[in-house]
Amino acid sequence: MNALDYFNARLEATISPMDFLKSHQMDTEKYFLIDVRNGPSHVRSLTIKDANVIPEQELQNRLSEIPKDKEIIVYCWDVWCNTAAKVAKVLLERDYKVKELTGGIAAWQEMNFPVSETAQDTIISDQCGC
Amino acid sequence: MNALDYFNARLEATISPMDFLKSHQMDTEKYFLIDVRNGPSHVRSLTIKDANVIPEQELQNRLSEIPKDKEIIVYCWDVWCNTAAKVAKVLLERDYKVKELTGGIAAWQEMNFPVSETAQDTIISDQCGC
Amino acid sequence: MNALDYFNARLEATISPMDFLKSHQMDTEKYFLIDVRNGPSHVRSLTIKDANVIPEQELQNRLSEIPKDKEIIVYCWDVWCNTAAKVAKVLLERDYKVKELTGGIAAWQEMNFPVSETAQDTIISDQCGC
Repeated sequence: MNALDYFNARLEATISPMDFLKSHQMDTEKYFLIDVRNGPSHVRSLTIKDANVIPEQELQNRLSEIPKDKEIIVYCWDVWCNTAAKVAKVLLERDYKVKELTGGIAAWQEMNFPVSETAQDTIISDQCGC
Repeated sequence: MNALDYFNARLEATISPMDFLKSHQMDTEKYFLIDVRNGPSHVRSLTIKDANVIPEQELQNRLSEIPKDKEIIVYCWDVWCNTAAKVAKVLLERDYKVKELTGGIAAWQEMNFPVSETAQDTIISDQCGC
Repeated sequence: MNALDYFNARLEATISPMDFLKSHQMDTEKYFLIDVRNGPSHVRSLTIKDANVIPEQELQNRLSEIPKDKEIIVYCWDVWCNTAAKVAKVLLERDYKVKELTGGIAAWQEMNFPVSETAQDTIISDQCGC
């Protein structure tokens, strides 16, 4: 694999906060955004606006909630987080169209892009994970 | 692709701030550094020292400014930015030698490496993008 | 290479701070953690807990210190650092099992994960590098 293959793969597999914001504003129906962060729900009550909260550890039981006809965007905490990559792998293996939002919610907040508080009634998990 | 292929590709496609600083100091003529950030010029008036400012959205019209005989280094805002990868892809497809500066200008500034103010007389773009 | 190949390669080549912490707690004997940062030792006296300090520029002379029967985890400064990738490449070419700790010591500290001060008696290098 050469440098061009590397950049092609990265651009196929990811979308930046700015590119997602602009593309989502032009066509809100095109995307299904998933917050896949694990860990206690109180530390992740702030999400990216319009995100669907499906923690990675609940993915196998909640696959039916994810539409096959939309482009799936997954994100976790930060650029060093691997949870979104794990979910992307599972969904790509099931023929979903998937991209990872680069930089996770950390980059999104650094850009001052819109966020929302999620409902606090989800079950608090015992296990915290990135 | 295995882990070794992954690291080889990353190392072929990117250069770290420290590696670029050292290599550039040893041979300033070897490189052509490009700041490819989009967005209003006033938010990107600070650049890496000696950078040539060619925003990604102007690339197609300004290809002639980029020398074929140098190693092209491209950078954008931060590690989660995809703009430099997009430019790298275009240039690699045209047989330029290209590497992305990892971490963009954010990592460069974190290292307290030399920066410079660009001229403020460039046309302010209507479109802001990362 | 498609997006799935990209995520598979990233997940094979890297481990996140949280995944490493949990996996290491379950089986401390499984891993051999290496701090591969170059540069003056006083700026890297703080390391990840239980890390073995083998700077990248000393690697070739200290290969015998690295066990073949453990999973090698390498880290450097931050997500934009390439030093850990360079070491991973060298070790993978010698058939070690290697993963890079994503985000380096910066992400580890951001998570408030355990660190330790190293001994200050290592020779201070003239060359600083990331």
